[in-house]
Amino acid sequence: MSFNTFGKIFRFTTWGESHGPAIGCIVDGCPPNIDISEKDIQIELNKRKPGQSKFTTQRKEDDKVNILSGVFEGKTTGTPISMIIYNKDMRSRDYETIKNKFRPGHADFTYFKKYGIRDYRGGGRQSARETAARVAAGAIAKQVLIKKLGNKYSVKGAVTQLGMLGCDLKNWDDKFIPKNPFFCPDKSILKLWEKYLLSIRKSGSSCGAIIEVRARGIPVGLGAPIYSKLDMDLASAMMSINAVKGVNIGSGMNSAQLTGEQNSDEISQKGKKTKFKSNNAGGILGGISSGQEIIVSFAVKPTSSILTSRKTIDKFGKNTSISVKGRHDPCVGIRAVPIGEAMMHCVILDHFLLHSAQCKN
Amino acid sequence: MSFNTFGKIFRFTTWGESHGPAIGCIVDGCPPNIDISEKDIQIELNKRKPGQSKFTTQRKEDDKVNILSGVFEGKTTGTPISMIIYNKDMRSRDYETIKNKFRPGHADFTYFKKYGIRDYRGGGRQSARETAARVAAGAIAKQVLIKKLGNKYSVKGAVTQLGMLGCDLKNWDDKFIPKNPFFCPDKSILKLWEKYLLSIRKSGSSCGAIIEVRARGIPVGLGAPIYSKLDMDLASAMMSINAVKGVNIGSGMNSAQLTGEQNSDEISQKGKKTKFKSNNAGGILGGISSGQEIIVSFAVKPTSSILTSRKTIDKFGKNTSISVKGRHDPCVGIRAVPIGEAMMHCVILDHFLLHSAQCKN
Amino acid sequence: MSFNTFGKIFRFTTWGESHGPAIGCIVDGCPPNIDISEKDIQIELNKRKPGQSKFTTQRKEDDKVNILSGVFEGKTTGTPISMIIYNKDMRSRDYETIKNKFRPGHADFTYFKKYGIRDYRGGGRQSARETAARVAAGAIAKQVLIKKLGNKYSVKGAVTQLGMLGCDLKNWDDKFIPKNPFFCPDKSILKLWEKYLLSIRKSGSSCGAIIEVRARGIPVGLGAPIYSKLDMDLASAMMSINAVKGVNIGSGMNSAQLTGEQNSDEISQKGKKTKFKSNNAGGILGGISSGQEIIVSFAVKPTSSILTSRKTIDKFGKNTSISVKGRHDPCVGIRAVPIGEAMMHCVILDHFLLHSAQCKN
Amino acid sequence: MSFNTFGKIFRFTTWGESHGPAIGCIVDGCPPNIDISEKDIQIELNKRKPGQSKFTTQRKEDDKVNILSGVFEGKTTGTPISMIIYNKDMRSRDYETIKNKFRPGHADFTYFKKYGIRDYRGGGRQSARETAARVAAGAIAKQVLIKKLGNKYSVKGAVTQLGMLGCDLKNWDDKFIPKNPFFCPDKSILKLWEKYLLSIRKSGSSCGAIIEVRARGIPVGLGAPIYSKLDMDLASAMMSINAVKGVNIGSGMNSAQLTGEQNSDEISQKGKKTKFKSNNAGGILGGISSGQEIIVSFAVKPTSSILTSRKTIDKFGKNTSISVKGRHDPCVGIRAVPIGEAMMHCVILDHFLLHSAQCKN
Repeated sequence: MSFNTFGKIFRFTTWGESHGPAIGCIVDGCPPNIDISEKDIQIELNKRKPGQSKFTTQRKEDDKVNILSGVFEGKTTGTPISMIIYNKDMRSRDYETIKNKFRPGHADFTYFKKYGIRDYRGGGRQSARETAARVAAGAIAKQVLIKKLGNKYSVKGAVTQLGMLGCDLKNWDDKFIPKNPFFCPDKSILKLWEKYLLSIRKSGSSCGAIIEVRARGIPVGLGAPIYSKLDMDLASAMMSINAVKGVNIGSGMNSAQLTGEQNSDEISQKGKKTKFKSNNAGGILGGISSGQEIIVSFAVKPTSSILTSRKTIDKFGKNTSISVKGRHDPCVGIRAVPIGEAMMHCVILDHFLLHSAQCKN
Repeated sequence: MSFNTFGKIFRFTTWGESHGPAIGCIVDGCPPNIDISEKDIQIELNKRKPGQSKFTTQRKEDDKVNILSGVFEGKTTGTPISMIIYNKDMRSRDYETIKNKFRPGHADFTYFKKYGIRDYRGGGRQSARETAARVAAGAIAKQVLIKKLGNKYSVKGAVTQLGMLGCDLKNWDDKFIPKNPFFCPDKSILKLWEKYLLSIRKSGSSCGAIIEVRARGIPVGLGAPIYSKLDMDLASAMMSINAVKGVNIGSGMNSAQLTGEQNSDEISQKGKKTKFKSNNAGGILGGISSGQEIIVSFAVKPTSSILTSRKTIDKFGKNTSISVKGRHDPCVGIRAVPIGEAMMHCVILDHFLLHSAQCKN
Repeated sequence: MSFNTFGKIFRFTTWGESHGPAIGCIVDGCPPNIDISEKDIQIELNKRKPGQSKFTTQRKEDDKVNILSGVFEGKTTGTPISMIIYNKDMRSRDYETIKNKFRPGHADFTYFKKYGIRDYRGGGRQSARETAARVAAGAIAKQVLIKKLGNKYSVKGAVTQLGMLGCDLKNWDDKFIPKNPFFCPDKSILKLWEKYLLSIRKSGSSCGAIIEVRARGIPVGLGAPIYSKLDMDLASAMMSINAVKGVNIGSGMNSAQLTGEQNSDEISQKGKKTKFKSNNAGGILGGISSGQEIIVSFAVKPTSSILTSRKTIDKFGKNTSISVKGRHDPCVGIRAVPIGEAMMHCVILDHFLLHSAQCKN
Repeated sequence: MSFNTFGKIFRFTTWGESHGPAIGCIVDGCPPNIDISEKDIQIELNKRKPGQSKFTTQRKEDDKVNILSGVFEGKTTGTPISMIIYNKDMRSRDYETIKNKFRPGHADFTYFKKYGIRDYRGGGRQSARETAARVAAGAIAKQVLIKKLGNKYSVKGAVTQLGMLGCDLKNWDDKFIPKNPFFCPDKSILKLWEKYLLSIRKSGSSCGAIIEVRARGIPVGLGAPIYSKLDMDLASAMMSINAVKGVNIGSGMNSAQLTGEQNSDEISQKGKKTKFKSNNAGGILGGISSGQEIIVSFAVKPTSSILTSRKTIDKFGKNTSISVKGRHDPCVGIRAVPIGEAMMHCVILDHFLLHSAQCKN
């Protein structure tokens, strides 16, 4: 059971509401003797931080993390690592006008129906603010994996489609990604995206996005069939991110359109190295890593808090309409990039540890 | 931890290999005093059974289920329900020629690399034969849900795309689905599909498919944020099915292309009934069911065992090629329909029970 | 998996070291709409607080709890409840002299051997200071159970044996327990215990104790056979408390000496009420509550940090001897009473929720 | 969650009722490439088998085990191992007279109250017949541990107290245990026990027992604080055995009577070997193995099915009396010895694998 906990051996538990005093994360099952500093975590958090460009929400959050336990003299001790991030720039009054109304496409409605109580301030626990806590967990997983797998291990995420506008994957450039506010990997599409998103924003609307995350330097053999398959856990991980509605592994939904010949990633051996001609499998076969690059992509739906008036009901069951002002991302998908990376780190580390237990002892 | 177990409260564990003496399933956490007979389970198993038409594998299996425990005088007792299905039509010698080779796109390679041992007969544990066991579990979940939610509860699965050929979802007809060997919901496309698949088969190739599963009569409030979201568990469930590479909830990957206005499923109240103008959300908001129809679709890649010769390596690391004869489905996706239904039943029952624990006591 | 998490549906995760900045607890799976205040939790924490009498350690801790999430306008929201307690009166230098030595009978040795790293300050994570975090969790469980089961529900713990000196259980007086610093239920033994413990203390030694915890107003039917039996979980819960070495349910280890006739708690019906002639079972049959009082007792070994010099080794494998000064409880068992109560609350609530899921939906 | 599953990584699930067609066990998480044969398992099952002497029940069961999956050409494959044992000598009619009555001290009452349905034949799922399934799981764990830890690894269980009659632990003789029907380790007490148990039997009564299980050759460092301590899991494991009411680790309940000096197991180093002067800790400190012998003992209450008439009620709430004929063990504790050994093997293997995951990768 795991309402607010993710993982099997490397497990993290998040807590906190958008407008509460703080949010946080407990990382459990982290191996001992790993170098960890608040700086390592801050670097990842800064990627997700709101208010960094005109393309994201104007809420200003430092997202400064403090480690409260589990690290002694700069090294993990094998005990739980507690991290806390205080909330700063909260404007709960922004939510006064919608406090009794449900935003169509938002979890307002279902949370209230499930729990019979509503923390309307900034979406409460439903807020994507929770994802900062998992970015912190991912930062720790990353450090562990770099130590265990070496520098060949890396994870790179990018936005590959913004609304109607896809990028060209052949132009993917790792180095370009951190240099633009869209985490766009394709320099040739950037200007178009800027124009597109500004127009979306100006019109008080929002748009969706597709994020792709690639992991390299993964050993063959990670994944635990049949009900802890690596791709199951990745699908589950990405689907847990707010507003995600679809997940692909490798060719994903497009696999349906392939023939057996097209789909089969032919194998050859060159010395000690096993090579694959293509990677429709996204690096996973039968739920187990093949040693190829792991490729996961997921779709983030458009922000549901929009200016345009929509028909809805209030918590008393009366018909009404809603128009959301506040400070919202015109495309929440953009800030999902570091979150997708964090979930990738966590799932891979979890299966790395699990594989040690199953097959390496 | 759950290598071969799925679920939180309603849990099933499967065991067995393709060419071992039997396969089976233990269902744990089933509520007591539910009427269950072997016949209820057989009906669902028969939908998945191989050898039923020229469009599926010619392996002939009765797939006759025996209940060995957990049911007393026709009713569940709250103790584990053990079910067994004996394997019949095994031809292990079919696999002699490929016993040391890896099929590209198949889990042969990764299982061997992970475990260092290979049960080559019919794919061993990797075989989709395992899915019969979960169809049995799903049949039990279905009976429980019908008793708990009444006859308004139903789950319907169908193939909505066969290779390159999509059907028209507007023509979806529940009653047509069981009347054709494709689980096709759209009468108008059927002839085309028949021709297409026969040609695929004749050429020794295979094709992929998309399956859509719809659940109706679901109460609002099922799902446990943040890391046991209903959509996480559905994504995980569907991704656990052999050869699945992508999962969509509602609009899924297409959500990326929508604007906020398009995506928001406007809400209105009519008497005691809450209505939604559309269902891009696929019946799930913030990981919790909204009371709308739950819609999940997933892509099944083409069968990797094909006649056409492909380049590969053997277990000694030598380059070679492979061409698979045996008796294989030209489109494994077709038989995934009852499996998708079974997983839907199991996930919904699990969250129904979990919701009782969280919010209804 | 649950290194630092306890429970199935009502789950708590603790973190923090003795001499770190703070310790804390996340409670997950708490039902919504329960009144909770920091005051409710503080009352329980105060029972466990050190420095309250000359019979316990002189470390002074406020143990003031702050709720950081999960409670909105005084009510639980169904989201995780994060609680933090800052550490105050730490004297890490007290531990300088023993920083490289292992205390015989203490977890110093095994933690170091397991993790290869040592946080020597106050025992780090091994410290019983962690138990404050679970007392906080227990306080929440208690409030939930009082709301669900009414005021007939209560849990009472007491010390029933101090070193060699047992009390007379026939004299058990609920009201006397909170009025003495030993949580002694038997007024007649108190003076003797005071003298005994003062002499133990003066001699620089320590002693063990037996704690008994009784839960009343428990409905019949709680417990999940076969591997989540109520008594399994209670044994596990009590054994998780620092320094506990034995657990009894009802007659416990003494059951071995009974005959079948003596052991059978005869049953009779009086109107709607089922009565039992005795309670050797401690309120649990086949792992399920019978409706009788639940009785658990457990033994706490003597504090291993003693003044008397003992032979030991240091972390470099050299023979040496150790004598521990610091501020230690002469009998850690005494402060285990509120911890045992807390664990009882948590286990019962967990099974109460689980029973709703299994049998009450 | 784990109603009928035990373990974290090495997990087994049992199913089956006393008078159903069969009972069985699925072992999941077993490492690959371990030699396993039905014979290895049969040896352990034979120790527990009923009808072997006049001191146990006269029910005759072959307890012949079949492996249905997970083993290929004599070696484990890393996939679930399914084992089945058919029930043979069932006399359900023996239970006709008590079918509506509850045996005092038996789980009849609580199962019925919990589930609202009763499989009265031989106790149904409550029957100790379930324990055969876990003995089978333990046999597999034992083979794995011998391969991983070498022949220095061993587990020995014995009855150390029969009713009022304790044996002298100083006379413990490993070799004598399998040579007598009591699993008695002390030759000097045997005659007395024989007389005692025959008189108990003749009088239609029953008696309790204490079982002690010792594990040797255990590496230091197994155990996962704080809520998966090795001693928690051992307490939980032993408490899950039918009729167990108390569990001790090392000095157990007697620790309460020790002083700090007496309790501290002094440590010394001799070359590469760490030595302990005594073993009050039972080989576990802070929930982690110290490398010493692990010593667990537990009390089994007297059989509740006795000839002597006892007052009780029936399922309609009427007062009545009960006298149980059937074929029952006069002391169920005796046959608990191989069960205790099996649980010890399973817990140790589980923590061995877990330790690999945490600290050895």
